Amino acid sequence: MEFDKITVIGVGLIGGSIGLAARGRKLAARVMGVDRDPRALVRAAELGAIDAYTTELGSGVKDAELVVVCTPVDTIAPLILAAAGHVRPGTLFTDTGSTKRNVIETVGNNLPRGIHYVPAHPIAGSEKSGVENARADLFHRRAVVLIGSHGGPTTLAEERVRKFWEGLGGRVVTLVSSEEHDRVLASTSHLPHVVAAAVARALPPAWHDLSGTGFRDVTRLASGDPRLWAAIFRANRAPVISAVNAFREQLDRFCELLQHGDGTALVEWLAEAKRGRDALGS
Amino acid sequence: MEFDKITVIGVGLIGGSIGLAARGRKLAARVMGVDRDPRALVRAAELGAIDAYTTELGSGVKDAELVVVCTPVDTIAPLILAAAGHVRPGTLFTDTGSTKRNVIETVGNNLPRGIHYVPAHPIAGSEKSGVENARADLFHRRAVVLIGSHGGPTTLAEERVRKFWEGLGGRVVTLVSSEEHDRVLASTSHLPHVVAAAVARALPPAWHDLSGTGFRDVTRLASGDPRLWAAIFRANRAPVISAVNAFREQLDRFCELLQHGDGTALVEWLAEAKRGRDALGS
Repeated sequence: MEFDKITVIGVGLIGGSIGLAARGRKLAARVMGVDRDPRALVRAAELGAIDAYTTELGSGVKDAELVVVCTPVDTIAPLILAAAGHVRPGTLFTDTGSTKRNVIETVGNNLPRGIHYVPAHPIAGSEKSGVENARADLFHRRAVVLIGSHGGPTTLAEERVRKFWEGLGGRVVTLVSSEEHDRVLASTSHLPHVVAAAVARALPPAWHDLSGTGFRDVTRLASGDPRLWAAIFRANRAPVISAVNAFREQLDRFCELLQHGDGTALVEWLAEAKRGRDALGS
Repeated sequence: MEFDKITVIGVGLIGGSIGLAARGRKLAARVMGVDRDPRALVRAAELGAIDAYTTELGSGVKDAELVVVCTPVDTIAPLILAAAGHVRPGTLFTDTGSTKRNVIETVGNNLPRGIHYVPAHPIAGSEKSGVENARADLFHRRAVVLIGSHGGPTTLAEERVRKFWEGLGGRVVTLVSSEEHDRVLASTSHLPHVVAAAVARALPPAWHDLSGTGFRDVTRLASGDPRLWAAIFRANRAPVISAVNAFREQLDRFCELLQHGDGTALVEWLAEAKRGRDALGS
């Protein structure tokens, strides 16, 4: 066993999947679940994602070696700071937030001596939320970004948290800057969500019957939880606006080629998109 | 058997799937394939999509009761007009083009007496092209739009073509206006393709590793054939530009809410997108 006790705060899709994977791969002797919603806790226990649970943060994190915070991005830092008062020295914190700068800035140097936070973001998820949709293999071969300490050598805390994420099946990628993380994710994750929602909003219900599998693919993300996503956009406002603006320039160019260009330039515009997408795989 | 001989012009993903479905469901005694590419014809015959083939249009359509044109949208009308000189009276034409106004305007009243064209568009496809990806169930329960004659009663030609598409497994939806078809499809199909390509173009290869399943869903369409899609956009220029503009207004509103609004309005913007998408199903 890598850990004696792990506490997962927030037992939704991501927290539940962490519990299932940690228990299935025997990374921890016990997985404790903490959530405000007692029904989610009962369901998570029934599904085998956690061994025990409580709605009380303090008792939930007591004696944990590792605390994994899997809640909306605007609640992660406050929860880490609140929980830090209830843990013993040496306890590690990590999280699963889709934005990192806001969490890191708020946690800052406010942790008690001997308590370490290693920011993480597993690039895995689903438009479906809730522990009912949790899967033990959610992180299998998925990239997990860790934000390392600026310039300094890798710490023991980072090493243990890296092992944890690798133990869940992830491929750890270390970035040294939360700004870089947030800028990249604005393009790879947040922009696609905005676009999916905007396309979905533009379709009158009367036209549903005349939309095919392509429309469903492009808009699938729009089924994600509106509160979770509003929090992500607000925590990453400037990079998201920049990504939308870069995307708009692509649209401008497309319209220009369609209205004034010959067919060749339009084919080339589409061919470059195809090359990029084909390189990603299915 | 509904038909003695059906000729499929263009044996790619769509034409190949029509051949597989027509043969599998015994809609025709013989399916003849016509294509400029002899390798595609050989492959289609190997896969059981056609019984016989030729690269010569005239001999391919001779004695056909029904000719189905499954080529890029800018080639459909010229092929129908060229083929019409080689068929016997009573022969029916239909097609699978993603745009209808351009085809209908060009074919116009230029067909010989007794030859009928019933414009069709099956809302089915894939980002994968070529007969290798053809499937007998491609049209199963998919909407197939037929453009009916303006105002007049349903013709016998329309009845037979409707039966053909229903025989392939499709659900026929009749519209009386090609303009309505092209306007709706600009939003349900052409816009999603533009958006998928623009998102795919905005991603530097170095960031591939930090993109997840959501990015793949949103951009999947970008793998489509650039020449086919450039022809579709050019054949439906004004409605596509209008759809892009309506979509841009959605983006503008999103950016405004993100920069200046409170969280509530952003949540509601996302919630409306979610309601629309959830109503569509997976």
